[in-house]
Amino acid sequence: MGLDHAATKPHEKLAAHLTDKLDGVNALIRTRMESRHAPRIPEVTAHLVEAGGKRLRPMLTLAAADLCGYGGEYDVHLAATVEFIHTATLLHDDVVDESAQRRGRPTANLLWDNKSSVLVGDYLFARAFQLMVETGSLRVLDILANASATIAEGEVLQLTAARDLATDEDIYLQIVRGKTAALFSAATEVGGVISGVAEDQIQALFDYGDALGIAFQIVDDLLDYQGQSAATGKNVGDDFRERKLTLPVIKAVAAADTEERAFWTRTIEKGDQRDGDLEHALTLLAQHDALGRTRQDALQWTSKAKDAITKLPDHPVRQMLIDLADFVVARVS
Amino acid sequence: MGLDHAATKPHEKLAAHLTDKLDGVNALIRTRMESRHAPRIPEVTAHLVEAGGKRLRPMLTLAAADLCGYGGEYDVHLAATVEFIHTATLLHDDVVDESAQRRGRPTANLLWDNKSSVLVGDYLFARAFQLMVETGSLRVLDILANASATIAEGEVLQLTAARDLATDEDIYLQIVRGKTAALFSAATEVGGVISGVAEDQIQALFDYGDALGIAFQIVDDLLDYQGQSAATGKNVGDDFRERKLTLPVIKAVAAADTEERAFWTRTIEKGDQRDGDLEHALTLLAQHDALGRTRQDALQWTSKAKDAITKLPDHPVRQMLIDLADFVVARVS
Repeated sequence: MGLDHAATKPHEKLAAHLTDKLDGVNALIRTRMESRHAPRIPEVTAHLVEAGGKRLRPMLTLAAADLCGYGGEYDVHLAATVEFIHTATLLHDDVVDESAQRRGRPTANLLWDNKSSVLVGDYLFARAFQLMVETGSLRVLDILANASATIAEGEVLQLTAARDLATDEDIYLQIVRGKTAALFSAATEVGGVISGVAEDQIQALFDYGDALGIAFQIVDDLLDYQGQSAATGKNVGDDFRERKLTLPVIKAVAAADTEERAFWTRTIEKGDQRDGDLEHALTLLAQHDALGRTRQDALQWTSKAKDAITKLPDHPVRQMLIDLADFVVARVS
Repeated sequence: MGLDHAATKPHEKLAAHLTDKLDGVNALIRTRMESRHAPRIPEVTAHLVEAGGKRLRPMLTLAAADLCGYGGEYDVHLAATVEFIHTATLLHDDVVDESAQRRGRPTANLLWDNKSSVLVGDYLFARAFQLMVETGSLRVLDILANASATIAEGEVLQLTAARDLATDEDIYLQIVRGKTAALFSAATEVGGVISGVAEDQIQALFDYGDALGIAFQIVDDLLDYQGQSAATGKNVGDDFRERKLTLPVIKAVAAADTEERAFWTRTIEKGDQRDGDLEHALTLLAQHDALGRTRQDALQWTSKAKDAITKLPDHPVRQMLIDLADFVVARVS
């Protein structure tokens, strides 16, 4: 994802279309992440909030509201809410995973410490909560409360399931909904809810966000085995080294013979990894076409996302959201 | 605090008076801490939620609602909310402080791990959020959102201020409001809000919770230097060893001569602690009557709490809340 085709990619077109609203979101984020008493807070958050994220989740809320003809200001509040929740989960995830890189930079907990990551994450979550309350919509609060519970539950589930070879595609899907899709679907759903559109359109917005989020996470897990560090900000094989059972490996394990299964048990379940193991894992994934079949799954979720959004009225933003869904899997074409 | 005078202590009288409601709170807590997908969650929370806490915070909500003649069911929801928020902050505090004991038991993060503590705390916070949404009161949501932000801000402030000898009594008070009083005052305030009483009574309930919480935390910090491990579940001098600048030390530092200041700089700011340092710290605290003057401050906050609650109508629960305020400081009489 170089910079040579700027403004031709779907998320860039969305950003250009929503530029005034996005400026409002950025201004609100800067205001609300300040702390009168604890200057450490903006120090930690600036690192993440200003780090050149694509603002994908807030853009989904703004796009959904725009597509539904929303004329108010609370789309900006909710977009900032969604970004704060996302940033809080990144901070807590950093503590958890001891991951060494995030968006190609050192993680907050290497620059500061675990304490700051946990507590500043809590602060952002509380700030998100305040922003939603300001919208005055109990339904919005309900959606985002449920999404928050699903996110935390998915993260806990991942703790116990990630290194367990019994983890199947159903459990993987639950984890992925928690990690990624719950916030995507909440982001699009609340855009519809504040716009007051019909229930079937709200459902379609939810379905779009859910399927897009699942496709997005599957592609992310795929890129971990076939991406380039420069493009993704991650190193190839990070998930393997961290013993995370993601979809490519789940497919390879399901097709494994006895010897292959012993390899996965040793490397993922027992964590006994040696020189050459990542290369052997990649060979096994290739033998069972695990990456190709994972990509097929991502394409199916992309189709679901596009089918869902087609239930909304014709609108330039609708086409951008369709293109966005295609773009998500184009990363692994 | 032995068991010989059971049911004569104010919190025990409150518990006896509110027994049906408290049963409802315990049942709701058990239901809502379950997780369909992640059995690790109740494993971690049961440890804290069932660990024989006095349910002081939920009792404050129930007592406030009872005192205001509330006849509905949402006091139970809000009491459970408050306990979930409290438990979530304990879990996150465990990660942060590497504290070795909590209520006399090993902390969750020694029994499980940091990952579980962070993520299960997040789950409980999300569950708390869902419970409040069910009350349908935006004002209640606003109060608890603000309390959550104050709690997180106070904890972050403590990170930067705790080992800094420049921390004065004003900063200490901000930290204490974050650590303890914000949830106490929110607990009592929401009890008044759902009861629909007049604004001056809601304010009085807030003031009571705020002052009680401050007194409670000051006493806690005092007990750290003069309590017994069996009574408090903490070891004498834990705060000193963890280099936490609490009120007794702040008072001693304010009165310190050059040599004494050098001692506090070495032990608290630089963390260079040697054999005999705790004993010397206790000697300095005694020389400046730092413990006695800290106790006087606690007594003043107790008076403020009692003055505030006296603005509520006469009622058996009002007397129990007055007695509770006295009992908080009686621990250090």
